Amino acid sequence: MTEQKTKSALERVLIKDLKNHIGKDVKIAGWVSAIRDHGKVAFAVLRDRTGTVQAVASEEYNDTALPDTRKLRDQWVAEIVGEVKERPDKMKKDELNGELELGIKSVTILSEASELPFDMEADLNLDTLLDYRPLTIRRQRSRDIFTVSATIVREYRNVLIENDFTEFQAPALVGGDAEGGAEVFKVEYFNDKDAFLATSPQLYKEIMTGAFERVFTIAKIFRAEKSATTRHLAEITQMDFEMGFIKDHTDVMDMLEKVTRKVSEKVAEKHGDILERMGTRPASLPEGPYPRFTLRETQNILKQEYGIDAIGEPDLEPEHERKICEYALKEFGSDFVFITEFPTKKRAFYTYPDPNNPEWSYSFDLLFRGLEINSGSQRMHNYDQMVEIIKERGMDPEVFSFYLQMHKYGIPPHGGCSTGLERFTARMLELKNVKEAVPFPRDMNRIDVLLSGN
Amino acid sequence: MTEQKTKSALERVLIKDLKNHIGKDVKIAGWVSAIRDHGKVAFAVLRDRTGTVQAVASEEYNDTALPDTRKLRDQWVAEIVGEVKERPDKMKKDELNGELELGIKSVTILSEASELPFDMEADLNLDTLLDYRPLTIRRQRSRDIFTVSATIVREYRNVLIENDFTEFQAPALVGGDAEGGAEVFKVEYFNDKDAFLATSPQLYKEIMTGAFERVFTIAKIFRAEKSATTRHLAEITQMDFEMGFIKDHTDVMDMLEKVTRKVSEKVAEKHGDILERMGTRPASLPEGPYPRFTLRETQNILKQEYGIDAIGEPDLEPEHERKICEYALKEFGSDFVFITEFPTKKRAFYTYPDPNNPEWSYSFDLLFRGLEINSGSQRMHNYDQMVEIIKERGMDPEVFSFYLQMHKYGIPPHGGCSTGLERFTARMLELKNVKEAVPFPRDMNRIDVLLSGN
Repeated sequence: MTEQKTKSALERVLIKDLKNHIGKDVKIAGWVSAIRDHGKVAFAVLRDRTGTVQAVASEEYNDTALPDTRKLRDQWVAEIVGEVKERPDKMKKDELNGELELGIKSVTILSEASELPFDMEADLNLDTLLDYRPLTIRRQRSRDIFTVSATIVREYRNVLIENDFTEFQAPALVGGDAEGGAEVFKVEYFNDKDAFLATSPQLYKEIMTGAFERVFTIAKIFRAEKSATTRHLAEITQMDFEMGFIKDHTDVMDMLEKVTRKVSEKVAEKHGDILERMGTRPASLPEGPYPRFTLRETQNILKQEYGIDAIGEPDLEPEHERKICEYALKEFGSDFVFITEFPTKKRAFYTYPDPNNPEWSYSFDLLFRGLEINSGSQRMHNYDQMVEIIKERGMDPEVFSFYLQMHKYGIPPHGGCSTGLERFTARMLELKNVKEAVPFPRDMNRIDVLLSGN
Repeated sequence: MTEQKTKSALERVLIKDLKNHIGKDVKIAGWVSAIRDHGKVAFAVLRDRTGTVQAVASEEYNDTALPDTRKLRDQWVAEIVGEVKERPDKMKKDELNGELELGIKSVTILSEASELPFDMEADLNLDTLLDYRPLTIRRQRSRDIFTVSATIVREYRNVLIENDFTEFQAPALVGGDAEGGAEVFKVEYFNDKDAFLATSPQLYKEIMTGAFERVFTIAKIFRAEKSATTRHLAEITQMDFEMGFIKDHTDVMDMLEKVTRKVSEKVAEKHGDILERMGTRPASLPEGPYPRFTLRETQNILKQEYGIDAIGEPDLEPEHERKICEYALKEFGSDFVFITEFPTKKRAFYTYPDPNNPEWSYSFDLLFRGLEINSGSQRMHNYDQMVEIIKERGMDPEVFSFYLQMHKYGIPPHGGCSTGLERFTARMLELKNVKEAVPFPRDMNRIDVLLSGN
């Protein structure tokens, strides 16, 4: 076992801060992302978490800098000590550290790397991208995607916290499938008993409103649907919130609009460079509220504007979602559009029916750039009505007795919604496949590696 | 289906803000938490997410206020419109809204509640507490615990974000047990294949350091150990971070100390009232660094100070953890103490051995008030050495080939650690059982309800 401690006594400087050290000797550390050998000089581009810089070795300082630099290869990890030099004006570039370069004095190799299976910035298909995830996660494109994803979840939480929401941890292991309908993964629990993986934190967040009124959870949910589309995953990060004392579902929509607007503004503000690299633009946000259409209004618009006859259908097809988003952008300058009042029987059992037209519900979807990223509603809060609905749907209230304590012991009118982090990220960056928006996506064919045929 | 819309056009006022409305009519909404009927007057205490207030009904305003108030029962949900009145000086109390009361003008019932099975503030055993979770979550004690838990996770994240850590979502579904050793839950995956529930986000966060150097994840982990202790759960919320370009494990310890110190300070600052109600005190933080003892030093202290002979043992027993914490508090004024350099063979395979004494490792535990709440180490970063160790431990490197790409393609010296949110919360509030620190704990006997014997 050999030790590779730092040779230099200098403190490490982050690459983004080099401009503050012009004329001085510094130590930087990172991954080699390019090498060019011109004989009497060699160039190495080093990347750390804050950026990249070009370092150049010649025989200017000593005999070892140039040969040591020549040894470096793509993805090797190294510390470089050198002098921060301003470039001549005609060599300056309009990019991070474009005005300087590092004159290499010494190189310490921290880790070598095998020869790469492909060029790091090559165009890869999804299977190769995922087969080599520990390597491809380092690509500019991957770092960009997961930087934006981290900003989305952070700002989503921040807005909720500013609005008095309390965070809690919803369980992933559950005793049954509360939502009904979705395909569920079964877990071998203790003593030959079965448990299941949660398909939603729904019942738990409703229960938590009894203590805190306003709660949120960033929860994993699991869907055993045999779907291999560009929109589906087996394991999803869901950003859920729920709020009490609402007048109806529009209070939830107002809060969701506040959250998604702020998230979109923050992504635009912080990540203009990423949006540009990804070839997209900031989300278009209308000055007024997001457009809101009932399902029936939506179907009329689809008919009039696009000649699509879906009138009377209980839900929107993917193509309908794309078209109504196209319309919302054209007419309202909005990449977001709410669709409301879906048929009660097509929504989960706890959805609150419109008291004046009980076949329609106080429910909504939020579409973003052609895709549903959020679904929500007001929920039933009256115990007797909830029990009655459970029976009408052919389910056994006894199965829900734990959950129904909430209604039995007094819960206010409340509602909430659920945003898929991966879908939100994918549409923010206009990724074709939601799987690209997850570092380690799970689907029916893959858990890290492709599942073999046996 | 009947509608229970707000009768009053007044905007709801939060109970904590009533003091700004003295002399005015307001509407409040919340849960009834106490009722006293004195014949000509009746009192109701109403709780919302911000506090409680006493409301009083008499025949002062109209004929309906008093009889409507008398109908209210514990946990009913109501809106009350009334006048905010200053209490006479001799009736003032030193508590939230102790200087005022609400003169009830009208009551609107939003939800009724069945008669409660016990008094809300009664001393309940753990099984009753959990059997009735949707109700008991509303108790002052439960709200206090989960308020503190939310602060802990928020501040933990905040400090990491301030220190350049990038958040990512580690998967819960994995293809095998990466840590080796822990009992693992099996999941029926697609097409008759098995998957497993993650026992740690370890390998994923190491992989992510390749892109971001510094990463964290708030991840669910699952342990199928048949333990029914006060320290174990089957589903745990783990706050994990990992950082690259470290000199050794002490860099990780420094960061962990920064995080836990800030979390403890924030809890003390924001939740003095809760700590008082729970009968505990803020965590004691030394002015200097947390005390740090190697395992061997710890065993010597246990021998000298407490006559406990555990010299040569590979780990600490729970009683040893309590004693060394007692010692750290007494001698250093610290509720936190690091134990370092455990035997290499007792730690996970990726743990970095001390290059000078390879049988001891660059590992640590952080103990807090008598309990291990965090475990961490420097990790192996050299590919050849990692493969060799995997073989030495009798495992097959091929099983780890996905993970080993990280080492194969260059990773810097790195390390990290993992804090259990429930244990941290439990010790912060001196809860006897970690299960009380989770809203919906899972163990071998319970998923929401007790698992039946069949």
